[in-house]
Amino acid sequence: MRDVYVAGVGMTRFGKRADATLKDLTGEATREALTDAGLGPGDVEQVFFANAIGGAIVHQEMVAGQVALRPLGIEGVPIVNVENACASASTALTLGAQAIAAGTAERVLCVGAEKMSHPDKAWALAAIGRAVDVEEVFGPEGPQPGGRSYFMDIYAAEGRELMASRGATSEDFAAIAVKNQSNGARNPRAQYGASTSVAEVLAAREIVPPLTLPMCSPLSDGAAAVVLVSGDALARGDAPVVRLRATALVSGGRGTDSEPQGSATARAAARAYAVAGLGPDDVDVAEVHDAAAPAELAAYEALGLAAPGDAVRLLRAGDTRLGGRVPVNPSGGLLAKGHPIGATGLAQIHELTEQLRGHAGDRQVEGARVALAHNGGGWLHGDNAAVVVSILDRQR
Amino acid sequence: MRDVYVAGVGMTRFGKRADATLKDLTGEATREALTDAGLGPGDVEQVFFANAIGGAIVHQEMVAGQVALRPLGIEGVPIVNVENACASASTALTLGAQAIAAGTAERVLCVGAEKMSHPDKAWALAAIGRAVDVEEVFGPEGPQPGGRSYFMDIYAAEGRELMASRGATSEDFAAIAVKNQSNGARNPRAQYGASTSVAEVLAAREIVPPLTLPMCSPLSDGAAAVVLVSGDALARGDAPVVRLRATALVSGGRGTDSEPQGSATARAAARAYAVAGLGPDDVDVAEVHDAAAPAELAAYEALGLAAPGDAVRLLRAGDTRLGGRVPVNPSGGLLAKGHPIGATGLAQIHELTEQLRGHAGDRQVEGARVALAHNGGGWLHGDNAAVVVSILDRQR
Repeated sequence: MRDVYVAGVGMTRFGKRADATLKDLTGEATREALTDAGLGPGDVEQVFFANAIGGAIVHQEMVAGQVALRPLGIEGVPIVNVENACASASTALTLGAQAIAAGTAERVLCVGAEKMSHPDKAWALAAIGRAVDVEEVFGPEGPQPGGRSYFMDIYAAEGRELMASRGATSEDFAAIAVKNQSNGARNPRAQYGASTSVAEVLAAREIVPPLTLPMCSPLSDGAAAVVLVSGDALARGDAPVVRLRATALVSGGRGTDSEPQGSATARAAARAYAVAGLGPDDVDVAEVHDAAAPAELAAYEALGLAAPGDAVRLLRAGDTRLGGRVPVNPSGGLLAKGHPIGATGLAQIHELTEQLRGHAGDRQVEGARVALAHNGGGWLHGDNAAVVVSILDRQR
Repeated sequence: MRDVYVAGVGMTRFGKRADATLKDLTGEATREALTDAGLGPGDVEQVFFANAIGGAIVHQEMVAGQVALRPLGIEGVPIVNVENACASASTALTLGAQAIAAGTAERVLCVGAEKMSHPDKAWALAAIGRAVDVEEVFGPEGPQPGGRSYFMDIYAAEGRELMASRGATSEDFAAIAVKNQSNGARNPRAQYGASTSVAEVLAAREIVPPLTLPMCSPLSDGAAAVVLVSGDALARGDAPVVRLRATALVSGGRGTDSEPQGSATARAAARAYAVAGLGPDDVDVAEVHDAAAPAELAAYEALGLAAPGDAVRLLRAGDTRLGGRVPVNPSGGLLAKGHPIGATGLAQIHELTEQLRGHAGDRQVEGARVALAHNGGGWLHGDNAAVVVSILDRQR
């Protein structure tokens, strides 16, 4: 298998962009990634396009990638539309990496785009609920517009479980929101970002106990794009080179006999570390799937960044803040940067590539050489339906 | 790149199966394919799951593969949800083949499933219309329930174009319907199948001139599954061995400089023939994308089965009938077998595998050694958005 490199990254500002179409968002991110890679539309040999709820929101149920990329002059080549709920974009990344590694292409474009702005916000929240076993959870009529996202019930339950098993408190969840809002304020592409306090977060509108509004990721529009290339297609020069060392997709449920059992996140991480030949201690910076604040805390242990039972201590010690031992979600994460669900996984790669290149401005993690991305999607029988963990490093 | 083999195939009967869920259909096809391959659920290393309009019909907008496969005990492993409109299932096949060829897996499951039965038939027809540039064609509200499928307007225009440029007649389109109904009558899994006549087809209800009802593929429920394996994982024994020699996915639009220009079908065929090291004269049997009768006629030339300008002659000579020089759609094709859109591409592989094994009963193409499948999806600026052409042969 050949090495895989990140040659270019691009992303839109995330946020409420009611006037921007899926094409607009896709075009903005893709053009930036191609320019960053020094390539043109005609250089792209394969495309993996991620989108999760375009059918529900803008009626583009099918061939969204072909529709969105054609105005850019990307046509003719294989385009595959990929979906794994909130892990759609990182799933596209795994397929792009596989194509390069296998030698079926030298230059692959991975794009994720999502429109979540909808005149009826309740409808957008209901649409997100379709990433579960719809028949089992909602019955034949599917999720109906209600007051909040079904997923926040799931994350609230995760929060309560962490309180019971780990001694986590509402203040800990609030502290994660404060950290990520602070990081988001340093990220010009973030939807939000603010200097706030634990007290303010706890006093905010309650969504589902123990979650208040700032502990939940928002509805967002946005797109992110990554150009992957082989070593042969890598531009020569003095610029930093970022390599995709591993990208592991797993589904929830029983693992294989040859890997550690546990959550989908733990299994994906174990596989990614094994492929990369690296371990949690090597990670300098991470973007994790903080769709709600408790999910970030749970990820610390599942990814091995904290020892079992040690997540709360890691958080309280400030190790995951900018300037800490292993900063987590320097971009602001899903909580502050935003979470256009089909784009999130590639936006994580955008942030980590900028970090490894040393281009992350005043949210730069000094000396970052190894980076980890964690992206989860859907919910099925007590675990994510899909999880992707990717590891990148700086080669020069 | 390693060789790729078809180790097992399965499919449901296609048709109106209002009481069968997406899980039921997926389970039926998958269990049959695994049994055929001599494998169990735990042997599957990767899954590519195709579904196109599950969001619109049964509200399973996301993670349909994980949801549908979990009851079978297929979980934990990478599952990717894939969509390319009516070419979704063959797109899953291309990814499965790539995984085997690249050496990332020894045994891959490709499944396609679709529920199209809906209490409101007009809604199902409108859903199919979402495989175009929805914003451009229908505006921000998307396709609304009308009297017929938007795609039949497209196919009717193709029919009129073939009448003008090729001298095709309504009788020719009717003859394709008669042929495929006759074949479908020999296929126990086909939705339809009948002994009918050109006169009867022409006298049937008009959909859009020159199309009458039997010239249009129906709404169908169904699933199909294919197990791909490497040479190392191929079962030993005396049974016939079917190899997937090539599977080429392209998008509509401008091709590359190094390949013949033309329709997406022509470009996909050129690529598949080149990879397989075979040509149209080698093809003994083909399944082509007859979503409407004119599309089959157009495919004859685009696939090289007829010389340019010679499609009508090929048809009228009876060369594409069972017993002819190169039988096309022995399964009954989309017209008679049915067209559950996310399953169709793998149902074609099911039929061709049975043909190459010599197990196709009274629709067997005698001595078939090389087979071709052609699956198109979506419509964008005058061409399919995606086309897959695959070539299989019998190795022993």
